[in-house]
Amino acid sequence: MKKILIIHGVNLNLLGTRERHIYGDKTLKDIDNHLSSVFPEVTFEFFQSNHEGAIIDKLHQARDSFDGIVLNAGAYTHYSIAIRDAIASISVPVVEVHLSNIFAREEFRHKSVISAVCKGVISGFGIESYVLGVKALLGE
Amino acid sequence: MKKILIIHGVNLNLLGTRERHIYGDKTLKDIDNHLSSVFPEVTFEFFQSNHEGAIIDKLHQARDSFDGIVLNAGAYTHYSIAIRDAIASISVPVVEVHLSNIFAREEFRHKSVISAVCKGVISGFGIESYVLGVKALLGE
Amino acid sequence: MKKILIIHGVNLNLLGTRERHIYGDKTLKDIDNHLSSVFPEVTFEFFQSNHEGAIIDKLHQARDSFDGIVLNAGAYTHYSIAIRDAIASISVPVVEVHLSNIFAREEFRHKSVISAVCKGVISGFGIESYVLGVKALLGE
Amino acid sequence: MKKILIIHGVNLNLLGTRERHIYGDKTLKDIDNHLSSVFPEVTFEFFQSNHEGAIIDKLHQARDSFDGIVLNAGAYTHYSIAIRDAIASISVPVVEVHLSNIFAREEFRHKSVISAVCKGVISGFGIESYVLGVKALLGE
Amino acid sequence: MKKILIIHGVNLNLLGTRERHIYGDKTLKDIDNHLSSVFPEVTFEFFQSNHEGAIIDKLHQARDSFDGIVLNAGAYTHYSIAIRDAIASISVPVVEVHLSNIFAREEFRHKSVISAVCKGVISGFGIESYVLGVKALLGE
Amino acid sequence: MKKILIIHGVNLNLLGTRERHIYGDKTLKDIDNHLSSVFPEVTFEFFQSNHEGAIIDKLHQARDSFDGIVLNAGAYTHYSIAIRDAIASISVPVVEVHLSNIFAREEFRHKSVISAVCKGVISGFGIESYVLGVKALLGE
Amino acid sequence: MKKILIIHGVNLNLLGTRERHIYGDKTLKDIDNHLSSVFPEVTFEFFQSNHEGAIIDKLHQARDSFDGIVLNAGAYTHYSIAIRDAIASISVPVVEVHLSNIFAREEFRHKSVISAVCKGVISGFGIESYVLGVKALLGE
Amino acid sequence: MKKILIIHGVNLNLLGTRERHIYGDKTLKDIDNHLSSVFPEVTFEFFQSNHEGAIIDKLHQARDSFDGIVLNAGAYTHYSIAIRDAIASISVPVVEVHLSNIFAREEFRHKSVISAVCKGVISGFGIESYVLGVKALLGE
Amino acid sequence: MKKILIIHGVNLNLLGTRERHIYGDKTLKDIDNHLSSVFPEVTFEFFQSNHEGAIIDKLHQARDSFDGIVLNAGAYTHYSIAIRDAIASISVPVVEVHLSNIFAREEFRHKSVISAVCKGVISGFGIESYVLGVKALLGE
Amino acid sequence: MKKILIIHGVNLNLLGTRERHIYGDKTLKDIDNHLSSVFPEVTFEFFQSNHEGAIIDKLHQARDSFDGIVLNAGAYTHYSIAIRDAIASISVPVVEVHLSNIFAREEFRHKSVISAVCKGVISGFGIESYVLGVKALLGE
Amino acid sequence: MKKILIIHGVNLNLLGTRERHIYGDKTLKDIDNHLSSVFPEVTFEFFQSNHEGAIIDKLHQARDSFDGIVLNAGAYTHYSIAIRDAIASISVPVVEVHLSNIFAREEFRHKSVISAVCKGVISGFGIESYVLGVKALLGE
Amino acid sequence: MKKILIIHGVNLNLLGTRERHIYGDKTLKDIDNHLSSVFPEVTFEFFQSNHEGAIIDKLHQARDSFDGIVLNAGAYTHYSIAIRDAIASISVPVVEVHLSNIFAREEFRHKSVISAVCKGVISGFGIESYVLGVKALLGE
Repeated sequence: MKKILIIHGVNLNLLGTRERHIYGDKTLKDIDNHLSSVFPEVTFEFFQSNHEGAIIDKLHQARDSFDGIVLNAGAYTHYSIAIRDAIASISVPVVEVHLSNIFAREEFRHKSVISAVCKGVISGFGIESYVLGVKALLGE
Repeated sequence: MKKILIIHGVNLNLLGTRERHIYGDKTLKDIDNHLSSVFPEVTFEFFQSNHEGAIIDKLHQARDSFDGIVLNAGAYTHYSIAIRDAIASISVPVVEVHLSNIFAREEFRHKSVISAVCKGVISGFGIESYVLGVKALLGE
Repeated sequence: MKKILIIHGVNLNLLGTRERHIYGDKTLKDIDNHLSSVFPEVTFEFFQSNHEGAIIDKLHQARDSFDGIVLNAGAYTHYSIAIRDAIASISVPVVEVHLSNIFAREEFRHKSVISAVCKGVISGFGIESYVLGVKALLGE
Repeated sequence: MKKILIIHGVNLNLLGTRERHIYGDKTLKDIDNHLSSVFPEVTFEFFQSNHEGAIIDKLHQARDSFDGIVLNAGAYTHYSIAIRDAIASISVPVVEVHLSNIFAREEFRHKSVISAVCKGVISGFGIESYVLGVKALLGE
Repeated sequence: MKKILIIHGVNLNLLGTRERHIYGDKTLKDIDNHLSSVFPEVTFEFFQSNHEGAIIDKLHQARDSFDGIVLNAGAYTHYSIAIRDAIASISVPVVEVHLSNIFAREEFRHKSVISAVCKGVISGFGIESYVLGVKALLGE
Repeated sequence: MKKILIIHGVNLNLLGTRERHIYGDKTLKDIDNHLSSVFPEVTFEFFQSNHEGAIIDKLHQARDSFDGIVLNAGAYTHYSIAIRDAIASISVPVVEVHLSNIFAREEFRHKSVISAVCKGVISGFGIESYVLGVKALLGE
Repeated sequence: MKKILIIHGVNLNLLGTRERHIYGDKTLKDIDNHLSSVFPEVTFEFFQSNHEGAIIDKLHQARDSFDGIVLNAGAYTHYSIAIRDAIASISVPVVEVHLSNIFAREEFRHKSVISAVCKGVISGFGIESYVLGVKALLGE
Repeated sequence: MKKILIIHGVNLNLLGTRERHIYGDKTLKDIDNHLSSVFPEVTFEFFQSNHEGAIIDKLHQARDSFDGIVLNAGAYTHYSIAIRDAIASISVPVVEVHLSNIFAREEFRHKSVISAVCKGVISGFGIESYVLGVKALLGE
Repeated sequence: MKKILIIHGVNLNLLGTRERHIYGDKTLKDIDNHLSSVFPEVTFEFFQSNHEGAIIDKLHQARDSFDGIVLNAGAYTHYSIAIRDAIASISVPVVEVHLSNIFAREEFRHKSVISAVCKGVISGFGIESYVLGVKALLGE
Repeated sequence: MKKILIIHGVNLNLLGTRERHIYGDKTLKDIDNHLSSVFPEVTFEFFQSNHEGAIIDKLHQARDSFDGIVLNAGAYTHYSIAIRDAIASISVPVVEVHLSNIFAREEFRHKSVISAVCKGVISGFGIESYVLGVKALLGE
Repeated sequence: MKKILIIHGVNLNLLGTRERHIYGDKTLKDIDNHLSSVFPEVTFEFFQSNHEGAIIDKLHQARDSFDGIVLNAGAYTHYSIAIRDAIASISVPVVEVHLSNIFAREEFRHKSVISAVCKGVISGFGIESYVLGVKALLGE
Repeated sequence: MKKILIIHGVNLNLLGTRERHIYGDKTLKDIDNHLSSVFPEVTFEFFQSNHEGAIIDKLHQARDSFDGIVLNAGAYTHYSIAIRDAIASISVPVVEVHLSNIFAREEFRHKSVISAVCKGVISGFGIESYVLGVKALLGE
């Protein structure tokens, strides 16, 4: 049985209650439940934090206990070289996902400092981005 | 029954015979067969061309006859504003896919001029990028 | 009697059927007919292609048989140095036209690589941009 | 009967007496007379000033009394955000014209800060740029 | 009794009659009256000009006769190094104000060349930006 | 009775004890007391943290219980897109304030990534920047 | 007998009364008198304006009546393409002078948009910059 | 006996009939004949196309049947990442040649996107650039 | 007896267990022990955190109780203006150290936002960078 | 009696024999003789070298034995930070001169890395640039 | 009989003893001997220096006594505007050569400041680059 | 016994006699003596030159006879790619040192073109930078 860690980054705790025209009306809980029901064969751990350091700590801890990580880093995607280094320093494959198509939004969201150390990137499919991310990990 | 168009862009006809350390040893035929077997419920059309204009013509023709398009534009991804405009001018949803993680390669491959008009982007999962792309279209 | 070549570039074949809020609802055929009726004293040839190479071939052929060219290169306007060189290599005057005001759209549409080798630029007057372009050629 | 305001911007009062290899040997008076004779059905007002503020004042005054404006802002084209704002703040359509093809000259002349708020741009046809500008206004 | 000069820069004379969705429907006269009624203890002089040179002349004259200046330079904010130097050359404190939040508008409005020589900046509070500007001067 | 949250960002806990030539000799406690005495009709909550995540958590919590927020993000102003997104995701109006005139300091302090999503910006008036910020909120 | 026009640009009317640590304590009158006494054989006209348009008008008028012009454009040096064009459109030689060494000051003062169309540049010698400028004209 | 493919790119079909001051008066036929006579021991194939896709197709086909390729890509040199990838995907050595010295022409011609994947570059020797290119291939 | 604080920044807790080809196989504990044994005359405090805010808090606390600080900020080096300001706001000398030579790695690691407010920089000597950092502090 | 050192930098030994359309037909010897005859009251030393290090050595030696230096550094002007530092490290005033108007030539000649540490700059007056440079030194 | 000067620039004296994976194992002596044997009809002079000034002196001396120059400037290629000016100031044709393909190496090696004033460029063919350079000169 | 070469680059011969506020009042002789006394077990050779070429020659010669090199290249640090290549072409470890903290000075001093090929960098500790540099070499 596979173990997969889902990391929801900064501001994602507000999902479903704010800016629904961009992010849809699903809450984080909805996403987590959806993943559990779509992949009954997977053991998930779900984690959310607005703290850059906490996300890094979690990535470190994950390095011996998970088969893969799906990471939506939120705005940290665009400047946290520290998260980049954390990903690079562990050997668990990490898939970068985004709810919205970040390349169709403001210029400053087009650049991800973590993509280069992730296995791959999935962006723009709403809640399905997470599903596809898990599939990408299982498909290996 | 869904109809999906798979467009393989420039230089992808050489897949599997060259630069296997980057792109793997699967040929284009292998990808097409793989998609057909994974999605027996989908009617696929497969198209490859090294000609920018031919890809644009194909996108135009697809606008009334397909439910979705999976597009790997190859190097045209990085500069063909013409393909971008072709995508923007049709209403069929287009998913941009890449075999390799373009964000982990040379700087000039980090920028896609077509991402902003695609539904979403999937990059870095080898042949599975196509599979995920079709799943993203079916998931709607 | 003057002979003028009208070149409609990439994606313009879809005119009138898509993105009408930007380009209006006139088709390419409408434009061609309009030009013929406004300028009965001119012999027109109308040409459209989505292929950069075909546009270049056409420019080459035009060099001995036309008094002027009205060119709407579409998206190739922004990066086709090859079309630029084709224009520079023939002595027929070329007028660059655009349906929409390209300077009021996305940043990457503000730059034309062909303007410097054209006689002049007319941008933003819809179908009338072509009419003004022909007038500019006749006015010499 | 249409009323059209022609604004000649900075340094254009010297037209015809200096740098004729670039701007031709027509004087400003010649241009004005030419427009009056080509368009006898139009009531023109002609205005020239080297003062940025005076051009802005004129644009403001024009907002209730003209059907259209043809503006050759001269060098102010390249940096006067103030003139840009003046154009944006009135509802009369403004056509930007240039005698020379500004895109074929020095790099710093390729950028216009006013194009984005004008109806359209006509550049490179000498005195005929004005004629085409008026036609563009009448053609609406 | 304090003496404060209010300078309204370029295009602000049109306030209240145009682009109300950005600037509101208060006229310049309304602003001036509002300030007079909110601060009965202050002697105000109000000045508006579309001429860069006239604003500079006014700043020079103000240097011996006012306790402070509230300056909304309009579009000159973004490129008039001459106004910057005028402010730097007088010792009266100048507060830079803007009706709209210039940092939430077009990219070219994010940069002010005068901020560095002003006492401070207040941007985005509509007519209240002026009130806050006067309060900032009185609070010293 | 209005409820306003005052957020003092990173390094501001040292206020009054260090770098007094830039920030003055008032402590954070002094600012808080000053605000309470100037605005007896307002219920304030004061919050300071050096942790980016903690500031974001606080912004989230504030979204249902305050009428406005005055935020001095300190150095996070210049790179925390995460704080920007937090502000954008709540509907409480946020006023950005700075003690010093950030536009008169080092180049890298001239750019704020949060201004575009704040109601307005007040910079350069020392402790009075906070007072003006509260007034701006009350003045609505 | 030679006729030379001395143009003092924007903010130079305040010379000697403000910012003496940069510009010295000589007034504009002192400079003019000094030039007259150093060059008794020259007929001078002295002109100062804070208005860009007025400086341009003066340059135009000078084109038939002076043997040379010494121009200190002040801050307009850095952005007035209009003054540049005025200089280019007259045939009288113009020498660009600056009291301070503009290349040793703020970055934005290092670039002059008028140097390329002036005969030469003299910068950094205080009042003597003008004297050297006149000598340069006489030395032809 | 060696087999060498000579690829003449976009606009080179016009050679000798246009812009002779830059490219000389030799036609493409002259170049081909010259190469055949200078290297009687080599079997040449000559190919010219204005179509980016056709050049790519040709490069692909050449990968099993030639000992080397001399490529003058014309304007595609400066932006065709697709041709770059085609070169990288075949193992036949490719020598990049240019008739004119591209580094002594317009700024945008100084950059070649294909140089990095070619064996070497020869630029500026007119028709002899091709001869030197063949010699470079034979010299291995 | 001197008191020196050693701050190990983000991701450094993983030292010795990951990416040994870059950072060597010494653990953080090894570094701390090595420093204690090399400098028996110094009282050390060792601190590691992945949290930007925690590092800032620690710097603040250190300002009254240490003679010097050796700081390896990890990836925060490249963007944490907040840490920069924390260093600037305390008077204890801080020496910036790096295990690897950051100037020989990726472009984005060449820039340190904290160097300018540190006493000096030591980069590239592995574990010895710390030893040299302490020596630099003792040598004062 | 004043002692002035004239330093002619790189390539200036060829003066008068090459590129006369830019630099005139005066030789270096002519310049030196001209200076001696114009300023009989000055003791000159003339020095020319194509070696950056030799120019630096000369500047060092000059620091105790000259009242001023006129320096035409030639192409070193544009990149020799080493010469810049040499000038900054001596207290003799240095005047930077150029025969041609460097601001009217290629873009890369517009930037001088030494201007900021020189007393002033004189550019564009041919051989007279040196004369004016000496006058500037004597005028102190 | 032709006379050709071969200039080996900075660091080339170490050829064959260091970094053989880039430059091969031929020494400078080998190159010189190879050229002499390939071109028995040419009189060669061989020159190597690590001193920018010495290379410039040599170029100057060569202007009356050689029919052509083959120059490998080494690292000076990328920044020595002084060598550029030396080449421009003599009329002997200069061919720029490089052993390695500089366009396939670090970004900063892609730019040559001397190409624009050389007859042509040959890069990437190892020792044969010199041979081709001589052939290019003889072929004139 | 270790042999270490100390290279003092351009302008460092003036040390202690000029700009003491930046570099201190120690002379080069003082530094050399200090190193000899601190490290009696090391055989030093001391070398200073203002000539880029001479520094390169010295580096070449050092490659067989020293165990390490401490290099303060002075201003050549910022642009001498030639010195960079010299360091890269020898196998002796080189430590880059600076007296002042170059990252706290002018922008153009923040970039070192030689750091990437040095073992490490030590900047900002005055004369102790050299001592630490030698220690770094001995510590290997």
